[in-house]
Amino acid sequence: TDAYSLLILPGDGIGPEVMAEVVKVIDWFGANRGMTFEVGHDLVGGAAYDRHGVPLSDETMARAQSVDAVLLGAVGGPAYDDLDFSVKPERGLLRLRKEMDLFANLRPAQCFDALADFSSLKREIVAGLDILIVRELTSGVYFGEPRGIHADDNNPDNEGGRVGVNTQRYTSGEVRRVARAAFELARKRGNRVCSMEKANVMESGILWREEVQWVHDNEYPDVALSHMYADNGAMQLVRNPRQFDVIVTDNLFGDILSDAAAMLTGSLGMLPSASLGAPMANGRPKALYEPVHGSAPDIAGQGKANPIACILSFAMALRYSFDEGDAAAALERAVEKVLADGVRTADLMGPEDGTAVSTAQMGDLIVAAL
Amino acid sequence: TDAYSLLILPGDGIGPEVMAEVVKVIDWFGANRGMTFEVGHDLVGGAAYDRHGVPLSDETMARAQSVDAVLLGAVGGPAYDDLDFSVKPERGLLRLRKEMDLFANLRPAQCFDALADFSSLKREIVAGLDILIVRELTSGVYFGEPRGIHADDNNPDNEGGRVGVNTQRYTSGEVRRVARAAFELARKRGNRVCSMEKANVMESGILWREEVQWVHDNEYPDVALSHMYADNGAMQLVRNPRQFDVIVTDNLFGDILSDAAAMLTGSLGMLPSASLGAPMANGRPKALYEPVHGSAPDIAGQGKANPIACILSFAMALRYSFDEGDAAAALERAVEKVLADGVRTADLMGPEDGTAVSTAQMGDLIVAAL
Ligand SMILES: CC(C)[C@H](C(=O)O)[C@@H](O)C(=O)O
Ligand SMILES: CC(C)[C@H](C(=O)O)[C@@H](O)C(=O)O
Repeated sequence: TDAYSLLILPGDGIGPEVMAEVVKVIDWFGANRGMTFEVGHDLVGGAAYDRHGVPLSDETMARAQSVDAVLLGAVGGPAYDDLDFSVKPERGLLRLRKEMDLFANLRPAQCFDALADFSSLKREIVAGLDILIVRELTSGVYFGEPRGIHADDNNPDNEGGRVGVNTQRYTSGEVRRVARAAFELARKRGNRVCSMEKANVMESGILWREEVQWVHDNEYPDVALSHMYADNGAMQLVRNPRQFDVIVTDNLFGDILSDAAAMLTGSLGMLPSASLGAPMANGRPKALYEPVHGSAPDIAGQGKANPIACILSFAMALRYSFDEGDAAAALERAVEKVLADGVRTADLMGPEDGTAVSTAQMGDLIVAAL
Repeated sequence: TDAYSLLILPGDGIGPEVMAEVVKVIDWFGANRGMTFEVGHDLVGGAAYDRHGVPLSDETMARAQSVDAVLLGAVGGPAYDDLDFSVKPERGLLRLRKEMDLFANLRPAQCFDALADFSSLKREIVAGLDILIVRELTSGVYFGEPRGIHADDNNPDNEGGRVGVNTQRYTSGEVRRVARAAFELARKRGNRVCSMEKANVMESGILWREEVQWVHDNEYPDVALSHMYADNGAMQLVRNPRQFDVIVTDNLFGDILSDAAAMLTGSLGMLPSASLGAPMANGRPKALYEPVHGSAPDIAGQGKANPIACILSFAMALRYSFDEGDAAAALERAVEKVLADGVRTADLMGPEDGTAVSTAQMGDLIVAAL
């Protein structure tokens, strides 16, 4: 088989630490499963800003476009808080998403049984939770024009004399393609999609609802589709999250709702994500994989970070980029086994729970369990 | 003392039922506390549409402008789902908010001890929860122009050929006035404000953050101010909601986050809201009070609805419109006493919890406890 090309962008904070454990996993699959990986490393976020004055250089962008899958750690940290908006570490991430056209962001929210007690929700509400949020990632208010902060000096009613503008904009085509991604995924799971917007107050939400319904009626009539206002969606996620299978929603609602859903599981350090675009010439989709957690600057460099979210993101790469579903499942089982054995990084422990393993120990034990 | 003028807009679904109980409470305060109420009734939402073809007539709008406080039940229901956007029941509510310029929406999320077990969160996470979300209510993406759905026929890349647009727009003055409302309220509570936006991806969020900070530094340096991205805010509300005192956020984030916060308490049928604008000639603010819950068409007309959210909204009217803080507290104590006595409407009961009282019985018992 041909080689699997990867670009590793560890980024900031705990990014490099957790990514080091992913490299061990990649090496294991290369050595033991006959896969050939071509692995490059580069800078993103604050680390790229420190070196190049921009959070993502044109060279790195070009490399990301040329590989099968980008693996990203995390970006940002307090050292960069006062930077200008246009060079904030986040801009590197947003440029990758936009230029690779990674329109479908897959965020599973799974509650691992061994960890259910870490949720602030009652065990009986979250045990066995397994939902998948599909967030549109390349459009909406994150990217719409016009945008900016302008002077509004001639308006005597505007104390402060400024105005800030962003534009929420969706084309029918943008909604349809992410809806298709959600329906395809649902067919391999519980066969149910719930679409969330605010069609009661926003015309872009009406368009969203109508286009999702159109894709359903014309192409996926076999999948059960429901619609929900996003505010009610937030409520229902807290009240009874297991009512959902696949949720599809826009960029901004997806940001908020997927973070709420992630927190339901109580294990933010466990949650992976995949961001997928159109197929490339070799048939593989444009793809970026990253943990849901951020750069956690408060614990960076201390060996305390949990590498599982990043390792499970690589499992998603095996599944969605390389069609190595069996290998992905084996990796997920290895993670489960280590957890079932009681191995815990500090984030997965209560105050009286014994001794935490380090980031590197967790990585080693997962590789050993493979 | 001069009369307190009220306009009651029961609206749709359970709105009329719960409002009937508020009328009993109003009558009690009139008869026993020497207050004089001038009470009018009118239609809003689907009920107004059925009569007038619009969800809020110009006459009703004018009456709302002329009273001290509007009491609203709820709007909407499945009978109106297929109406045109411009005449949906929600438009009546939005017109009231906009034309009365009710820029500060106060949404307390309190966990009543007697009801803590109804939360999907663990008791130790939510017991004693008492936060106040101040949502900007008259601007942002709900009202920004341009907006609409347009043809995009000449764009070969846009399958479907349409585009939906909304505009998120805030002036500095709009941010400052709602920030002042939040700081004022914080001074009477825990003296802490957390402001939430997405300044990492939206310029309107940068403006929001800077203007809130400006009001703090120049006018409320004694109040502790923090800033948080709204996605993290959603997480933190689920993880540890008691870390907050007052949260101030924009119209759309406020919609989502306040619904999530409401659900934390487990008692959606208990939560009131106040929407306040500028002072009128008599010194009272423009004001509208309404329960957080919706019109609940599934249980309408059955006497099952919980009137407490609507009654507690009237308590907020006593406090914020009429400066009758003692009366408001007495009403809140009456509600607590009835709950402590074990009286429950159906929404406040588990399956094996005995017999629920009706909407009217709950109202009568609260009046009796006054
Ligand atoms: C870092 C930030 C720009 C980003 C977003 O808002 O999309 C993050 O919150 C996420 O969800 O990946
Ligand atoms: C009914 C709807 C228009 C409204 C809103 O989105 O503001 C509701 O959700 C609310 O929060 O009061």
